Amino acid sequence: MKIAAIGGGVIGGGWIARFILNGHDVSIFDPHPEAQRIVGEVMANASRAYDKLFQAPLPEPGRLIWTSSIAEAVAGMDYIQESVSERLDLKHRIIAEIEAAAPKDAIIGSSTSGFKPSELRQGAKHPDRILVTHPFNPVYLLPVVEVVGGGKAADRASALLSQVGMKPVTIAREIDAHIGDRLLEAVWREALWLVKDGIASTQEIDDVIRYGFGLRWAQMGLFETYRIAGGEAGMRHFLAQFGPALKWPWTKLMDVPDLDDALIDQIASQSDAQSGAYSIRELERIRDDNLVGIFHALKANDWGAGQPLREAENRFYKRKVAAPSTYPLMLHQARVGASWVDYNGHMTEFRYLQVFGDATDAFLIHMGLDESWIAKGFSAYTVETHIRHLAEVKAGEKLRVETRLLGHDAKRFRLHHHILRDNGDEVATGEHMLVFVDTAKGRSTSMPHQFQHRLEEIARKETGPLPDHAGAGIRTLCTQGAE
Amino acid sequence: MKIAAIGGGVIGGGWIARFILNGHDVSIFDPHPEAQRIVGEVMANASRAYDKLFQAPLPEPGRLIWTSSIAEAVAGMDYIQESVSERLDLKHRIIAEIEAAAPKDAIIGSSTSGFKPSELRQGAKHPDRILVTHPFNPVYLLPVVEVVGGGKAADRASALLSQVGMKPVTIAREIDAHIGDRLLEAVWREALWLVKDGIASTQEIDDVIRYGFGLRWAQMGLFETYRIAGGEAGMRHFLAQFGPALKWPWTKLMDVPDLDDALIDQIASQSDAQSGAYSIRELERIRDDNLVGIFHALKANDWGAGQPLREAENRFYKRKVAAPSTYPLMLHQARVGASWVDYNGHMTEFRYLQVFGDATDAFLIHMGLDESWIAKGFSAYTVETHIRHLAEVKAGEKLRVETRLLGHDAKRFRLHHHILRDNGDEVATGEHMLVFVDTAKGRSTSMPHQFQHRLEEIARKETGPLPDHAGAGIRTLCTQGAE
Repeated sequence: MKIAAIGGGVIGGGWIARFILNGHDVSIFDPHPEAQRIVGEVMANASRAYDKLFQAPLPEPGRLIWTSSIAEAVAGMDYIQESVSERLDLKHRIIAEIEAAAPKDAIIGSSTSGFKPSELRQGAKHPDRILVTHPFNPVYLLPVVEVVGGGKAADRASALLSQVGMKPVTIAREIDAHIGDRLLEAVWREALWLVKDGIASTQEIDDVIRYGFGLRWAQMGLFETYRIAGGEAGMRHFLAQFGPALKWPWTKLMDVPDLDDALIDQIASQSDAQSGAYSIRELERIRDDNLVGIFHALKANDWGAGQPLREAENRFYKRKVAAPSTYPLMLHQARVGASWVDYNGHMTEFRYLQVFGDATDAFLIHMGLDESWIAKGFSAYTVETHIRHLAEVKAGEKLRVETRLLGHDAKRFRLHHHILRDNGDEVATGEHMLVFVDTAKGRSTSMPHQFQHRLEEIARKETGPLPDHAGAGIRTLCTQGAE
Repeated sequence: MKIAAIGGGVIGGGWIARFILNGHDVSIFDPHPEAQRIVGEVMANASRAYDKLFQAPLPEPGRLIWTSSIAEAVAGMDYIQESVSERLDLKHRIIAEIEAAAPKDAIIGSSTSGFKPSELRQGAKHPDRILVTHPFNPVYLLPVVEVVGGGKAADRASALLSQVGMKPVTIAREIDAHIGDRLLEAVWREALWLVKDGIASTQEIDDVIRYGFGLRWAQMGLFETYRIAGGEAGMRHFLAQFGPALKWPWTKLMDVPDLDDALIDQIASQSDAQSGAYSIRELERIRDDNLVGIFHALKANDWGAGQPLREAENRFYKRKVAAPSTYPLMLHQARVGASWVDYNGHMTEFRYLQVFGDATDAFLIHMGLDESWIAKGFSAYTVETHIRHLAEVKAGEKLRVETRLLGHDAKRFRLHHHILRDNGDEVATGEHMLVFVDTAKGRSTSMPHQFQHRLEEIARKETGPLPDHAGAGIRTLCTQGAE
């Protein structure tokens, strides 16, 4: 997939970051003297966010190729993303230059927030392949892209953009500003009135959103939320109830506020009071960290914006080579989740045991004790555990576990897990005694031979000395003399 | 804090669930024949969600007291939440009944989404204590409450509602529909046009929201998001850029769609296609699980809706201070949550350590190491743990922990926790070595004298022999001879 980007501001840079971090080269043209700095800053933010976002190993990033003309940038390309200023004459000129140099079946997607495909296509040689592909900031994180223009080009663009973790929404009929910005414009006008009339400050309006319906909209939209409000009586009942409100004089929607100097002053100074403690860079990082956490939460529930993330991860995992036969075993990796940290800002104590437990589950599958055996009424229970906490870890850190089999007999086996950071630093050790059980009878039983055989196979690789701390207990600090 | 609820539908039930699960009794009046069922269903959803939401041990739930009249419900109450149907004459009648029986300084908060305090207060005896306290569904999860009406009553209501995990937004000037519903109404009208004109389906509109700007609004609002879009040039620059769009004919805001049968049919059938695979109950649980995950993500970043959650948890931890005089100490109880069980149907391995960790936190507070010390940069970290799993437990079981202090010196202390069932059966033992740390320096340090003194006091009660297994390790089953 050969991709070019024309224009590298905040939006263009966001596109570029998404393509590159998903493993695709991008050739860029942007004559702005500061283009390299701006794109570099967006890339830095995006790399930082992706590092926290993905549990799966990221692909090798693509290359960013700076060119000195549109013709050079688009020659031989499959997909060209245009993100220049919102002026129709400028967009026409640039599309003409692209068409002069690009393959005739290359797709040209425009980031325009306002213009319709029919406007962009005026005077084009191959108009059908010119589309609106309108993203939302930050482009490298927010999945949605409005694809307007229809036909085979829209299908091809949607397929391509899905491959870089996006959620294309194909819009059937073109209108000014598509869907998202129309909804935003409605809210914006109403919010301007609220500030102008002194009803609420920018902070108060933002708080009503982010402590209220914004939380609903991060995972369900307007209609699905109202469907729930309608209850078992359904959407029809909800509409019948809500209908009359449309006739009430609740809003100022019939009029548009005048954005004069006084209102601009009012908003700008309220915004300073609200957010001025942070620089824009800090706000961007806070925003990105919050979005990453929200994506993780939604991925855990396999819902909404968590789904494109899961799909991307599945693609990334598939690229990984099958597990090597090295020893100690490397069967489990984990990312420290947002909900895993305690009031000290570090991974909570019990999450260490979660990582150990997940590594134990991975070992059970490795020895063949999978869900089909659980269903038959067999499992292995941990009866004893010894943990040494060696380092603190923070949200977003990546951990791996090295697993050894220290011993086994017909009914039991003894595991040693070593949690390490990406860089090899020790985080914790766990020693665990497990017993094979008949779950219906609730008591220990001898393992079927295939498991004993498998454990013997694994144990043959265990040739090193035992860890110093194996078998140790907590043996100091007794109030009583006896130990 | 004595609380009454008049009306127990989805909104009233949500209020009741929030109060009760935060540990407050609620006396309720609702003559609807199905009120008990409806409130029961909301309570069930709320219990399920809180079970997942809180890491801190929840307080003992308050009692729900059904009464047979408004007079009986409100007598002697401090705070009365009115959540009856949206009819002004009905609200006037109910407020009059409340005023006839409630203490004259009791606050009356109305859940009205549309009426102004000045309307609610018409004909009241003590009008100043009548407020709008408008929440958003689901009330037990979404923190925001719009408090309109001003004066001391608004201050008192805000303080009280903060104590049940809410984020009160005080609105300076009353208007119809307050703030949130005006913004929602603006979006709603625009969305109805998009469906009516065949531009997009309910699914497509929802997807643009939940894969797009809804994710931004779960953590920053409208103005803070645009502040970022303005970049270093600032809010003023953004406004100057965005200003002209107000004059463009982008939206249909000058007109209101007619919600006739055809449009109702169109929306209802699109909504069925979009969400019909799930029942309303299922959608509610999906929504709640998503919100819980989002709250956890925001709490980890100490931002927005994560902050009231953190504050609530701090309160819950504090309540556990109630100093017992018996020894072993009984500082922590827990109920096995629905999400705590594994594929074997028993409490997951790592939840044992969660119970031990919570008991350790309770001990820290018992010895005086509370959040004020954490804020000053001191804490105690677990460095070593030995767990013996003695019995399986199932969802819903109640556990208590007996805690002993086995030893201590200037920097360290050694705890022994014993998890027991309600009937006294042994479930597990945990032995833990903790080190007092200077969290800024990230290393151990001597405890201030007050903690050493407190530990000595506690240690004086530790007179019995050590547990047999104290200091033990996992000492059998070595593949290698050496041990």
